[in-house]
Amino acid sequence: MKKWSIASIPGDGVGKEVVPAGQKVLDTVAEVHGGLSFEFTSFPWSCEYYLQHGVMMPENGLDQLKDFDAIFLGAVGNLDLVPDHISLWGLLIKIRREFEQVINIRPAKQLKGVTSPLVNPKEFDLLVVRENSEGEYSSIGGRMNKGEDELAIQNAVFSRKASERAMRYAFDLAAKRRQHVTSATKSNGIVYSMPFWDDVFTDVSKDYPSIQTDSQHIDALAAFFVTQPERFDVIVASNLFGDILTDIGAAIMGSVGIAPAANINVNGAYPSMFEPVHGSAPDIFGKGIANPIGQIWTAKLMLDHLGEVELGEKLLDVIEETTTAGILTADIGGNYSTEQVTNDIINRLRSL
Amino acid sequence: MKKWSIASIPGDGVGKEVVPAGQKVLDTVAEVHGGLSFEFTSFPWSCEYYLQHGVMMPENGLDQLKDFDAIFLGAVGNLDLVPDHISLWGLLIKIRREFEQVINIRPAKQLKGVTSPLVNPKEFDLLVVRENSEGEYSSIGGRMNKGEDELAIQNAVFSRKASERAMRYAFDLAAKRRQHVTSATKSNGIVYSMPFWDDVFTDVSKDYPSIQTDSQHIDALAAFFVTQPERFDVIVASNLFGDILTDIGAAIMGSVGIAPAANINVNGAYPSMFEPVHGSAPDIFGKGIANPIGQIWTAKLMLDHLGEVELGEKLLDVIEETTTAGILTADIGGNYSTEQVTNDIINRLRSL
Ligand SMILES: CC(C)[C@H](C(=O)O)[C@@H](O)C(=O)O
Ligand SMILES: CC(C)[C@H](C(=O)O)[C@@H](O)C(=O)O
Repeated sequence: MKKWSIASIPGDGVGKEVVPAGQKVLDTVAEVHGGLSFEFTSFPWSCEYYLQHGVMMPENGLDQLKDFDAIFLGAVGNLDLVPDHISLWGLLIKIRREFEQVINIRPAKQLKGVTSPLVNPKEFDLLVVRENSEGEYSSIGGRMNKGEDELAIQNAVFSRKASERAMRYAFDLAAKRRQHVTSATKSNGIVYSMPFWDDVFTDVSKDYPSIQTDSQHIDALAAFFVTQPERFDVIVASNLFGDILTDIGAAIMGSVGIAPAANINVNGAYPSMFEPVHGSAPDIFGKGIANPIGQIWTAKLMLDHLGEVELGEKLLDVIEETTTAGILTADIGGNYSTEQVTNDIINRLRSL
Repeated sequence: MKKWSIASIPGDGVGKEVVPAGQKVLDTVAEVHGGLSFEFTSFPWSCEYYLQHGVMMPENGLDQLKDFDAIFLGAVGNLDLVPDHISLWGLLIKIRREFEQVINIRPAKQLKGVTSPLVNPKEFDLLVVRENSEGEYSSIGGRMNKGEDELAIQNAVFSRKASERAMRYAFDLAAKRRQHVTSATKSNGIVYSMPFWDDVFTDVSKDYPSIQTDSQHIDALAAFFVTQPERFDVIVASNLFGDILTDIGAAIMGSVGIAPAANINVNGAYPSMFEPVHGSAPDIFGKGIANPIGQIWTAKLMLDHLGEVELGEKLLDVIEETTTAGILTADIGGNYSTEQVTNDIINRLRSL
């Protein structure tokens, strides 16, 4: 009997609705499979926790998490309670950094039954590999002066080590897919970090002679996600560019509510963290209408990571059966509740 | 008789096709109007010029330009000839910086007769005001170390002066439009420059109590450009964010080939520069099929800037008559040539 211990952090807003949904689905996957179980330990860390304790997680929070097999997170942030840079850097980004979750992967593909906002989405199926440890999201910078002379500086930091690591990860994934890697750059406008990124990409690509490559400036690439998403296989991008591209990826899929993500620790020293692309959506929280698919698809990525790739594939098939059957939440044009969509997926899993 | 002297820089690739088209249209506007003329002086600065002279423009290039009423530019850059960071920073960005063209404005709206890639583009009509002098496009940074320890740092520089200037420009434009300004931020991930940007936005907005505001993170905003573009009026953004958003704006309009732009010198010390959003598109250059509308709509922005707002409006109406009549280049689904589209616009202007 394989037993996976999972730290679950519902976080804020709809995270508290979709994480339980994701857990129920995972329990069902285990039950149907047999010989497998999940043990979830839930942590209440969130903006509300901050209001009570003055911190987003306890001082020994990372210690509490470090021995789990994975972290299953909902969403962090609620601007009405805590400024974003405090809530995110105190929890989400802190875990990404301290647990060396240096790669963020986010697939975007057209789910049957979900209407894309694009006239002609063709059959896109792409995967963004986002460098998740440095780049534009740096902790180096500051402000100086007051009044009209005030200024702020933020250092974007790109190391060969981290850039190359993300790129190799992308090439390795492309080798199992359609053999193509696109690098997101902006070396025409950002003239130190991005030409460096380009050089590293050129170097790394030499080790993968059978993989096709191209480089696109982020502005053009963002536009291509709208006009020709089918032309991409794996895209490797810096922290910020990956962030932007994956929200566009979510948009063309039909809703940010269905987009999954994984923060991968590649050296095995710490757990990886699985959190959907969407935020806490305080505007719809509490109504029971949040789309659970982002979280459930994220559970699929967690299954992949735990080595249960076949189970993961099955789960994604079932998600698509549910959308194809028109069992949809409001964000994708239906009027089913979080619970109804979740139960439909569970029932389909049971009758596999 | 008003005479405007315009420096024209066709630049690279399709710039050499669409700039002459734009000039012909401007000549026609003048001819139809009477009491107005344009005198164009053409400069051959481009990547080919670089191959011959080792520089993108002569040392006294800026001196040669500085007394013109405006600069009408096509496109700069051809990766097959010159690395982008050399061609762009030696010409396009150099002019933007040295002539203190601190604001870049780029409208995006649905032209009748042009098919958007969006299922439901509604009637979006938005305007991105891009800070054009600093931010992520900084000239401060560098590389150090060799081999696996190599790294690059790029400083994003945000001053209150420049941020505030762009924001005030946005608010002033919104006051003449639909009274709404959206600020593009990323203060949840980029924790020095972006919270600073947010603070300046909060301060500036206090001076415009009748204008509605909101702040959106760039990832969400990029997605909203795809899912709900109609919800935006004026968007104010940093240099990089403005760059990305306006390419998405071009995509949802139906083609980067129709998107116009203006680089505005706000203190009147130097000429402003008018250049469409699209690049030099070497792949289609020489075939006579480049879409001239981006350049011609850009000419409309130049007319606005020269105080000929009514003429500008007329020109945009005529552009829309041409697209409505289905006189379209290949990028927007037609099979008319650059010349045919241009002549159609000219004939319609003549018969006004
Ligand atoms: C060519 C490049 C440097 C430029 C920019 O990023 O500013 C272009 O994309 C633009 O938007 O005018
Ligand atoms: C909340 C925010 C800091 C985060 C990011 O930008 O990384 C989010 O947008 C994401 O993509 O996971």
